[in-house]
Amino acid sequence: MPYVNIKITEEGVTSEQKAKLIEGVTNLLKDVLGKNPATTMVVIDEVPTDNWGVGGEQVSSRRKRGL
Amino acid sequence: MPYVNIKITEEGVTSEQKAKLIEGVTNLLKDVLGKNPATTMVVIDEVPTDNWGVGGEQVSSRRKRGL
Amino acid sequence: MPYVNIKITEEGVTSEQKAKLIEGVTNLLKDVLGKNPATTMVVIDEVPTDNWGVGGEQVSSRRKRGL
Amino acid sequence: MPYVNIKITEEGVTSEQKAKLIEGVTNLLKDVLGKNPATTMVVIDEVPTDNWGVGGEQVSSRRKRGL
Amino acid sequence: MPYVNIKITEEGVTSEQKAKLIEGVTNLLKDVLGKNPATTMVVIDEVPTDNWGVGGEQVSSRRKRGL
Amino acid sequence: MPYVNIKITEEGVTSEQKAKLIEGVTNLLKDVLGKNPATTMVVIDEVPTDNWGVGGEQVSSRRKRGL
Repeated sequence: MPYVNIKITEEGVTSEQKAKLIEGVTNLLKDVLGKNPATTMVVIDEVPTDNWGVGGEQVSSRRKRGL
Repeated sequence: MPYVNIKITEEGVTSEQKAKLIEGVTNLLKDVLGKNPATTMVVIDEVPTDNWGVGGEQVSSRRKRGL
Repeated sequence: MPYVNIKITEEGVTSEQKAKLIEGVTNLLKDVLGKNPATTMVVIDEVPTDNWGVGGEQVSSRRKRGL
Repeated sequence: MPYVNIKITEEGVTSEQKAKLIEGVTNLLKDVLGKNPATTMVVIDEVPTDNWGVGGEQVSSRRKRGL
Repeated sequence: MPYVNIKITEEGVTSEQKAKLIEGVTNLLKDVLGKNPATTMVVIDEVPTDNWGVGGEQVSSRRKRGL
Repeated sequence: MPYVNIKITEEGVTSEQKAKLIEGVTNLLKDVLGKNPATTMVVIDEVPTDNWGVGGEQVSSRRKRGL
């Protein structure tokens, strides 16, 4: 029954990579806690770099500075 | 003052259906807990089927298999 | 497959009231969107009144003023 | 290490305004709690007015009524 | 910079198991997306079984029925 | 109508500090976006250090190492 929410920046993540994240997290919850994969939900949110801040600065701005 | 977040897959939900969800949840909180509708907030997130996983698999992939 | 998160202040909500919220939201999603209750998840978060703010003020402080 | 999520309606917020929100929240956490800005994360979610409800009504509908 | 939120029922999860979840998710994001572990955050929420519903029913009630 | 969720580690934050966070975030949204404080909600979640991970490690473990 676990619910997992993964937030990452929207920077070209492929459908195949999303599939790997979903499979990986679901297996992790089965291996560590014995959770049933059938009822494990994973939701991936892709956030525009303008809308994500770290260090008090937008990621879009950091990317322009090569970070 | 309640805050409700509804996450559903992005599969053609109409504006009218969203209105019904918002009205229904707001009434439920009034009926069960006596919460004032004027300050009840509801946010609906529509998640692409590529970004939602259940059973360790993307919903987009499940849909192709007829699930 | 919907996921619903209900945030309310921690002010003596009973287990029976929680059961009604869970049942009501699940039925609403079935009625409006045809979602399968078996895979609808509802999580209720009870937030201490010191940790919830509205109007720039803690709810605990508002309660003392009779609001 | 704080994580802050700001949800607002999607109504023409500029990149510059987002930058101010990110900087402002990060400074607030430094000033009030001594949190290190380098590891403070802020995520802004812009929600379509059709998907946000208050008073049991969509914001899109309220806007049409001049609210 | 990813942020991951894991919600599970509050049923005796040990500190060691939490450590494994945190390490596992962080490694998964490094392996699949090349994300830097130093800035990956994971937050685990343990939800009382009275507050988690599935199938329109509290998990606490399901547990009593042996589910 | 904004909704803000602040997640911090549970390490002795006082009620007065919470009041300052709530007031500060509410004012920020008024100043930057013209949002009405009366309908701005702020929810603060205090997360046990065992349940928060960064760098693939629990914060509780980091604290023991003096970080």
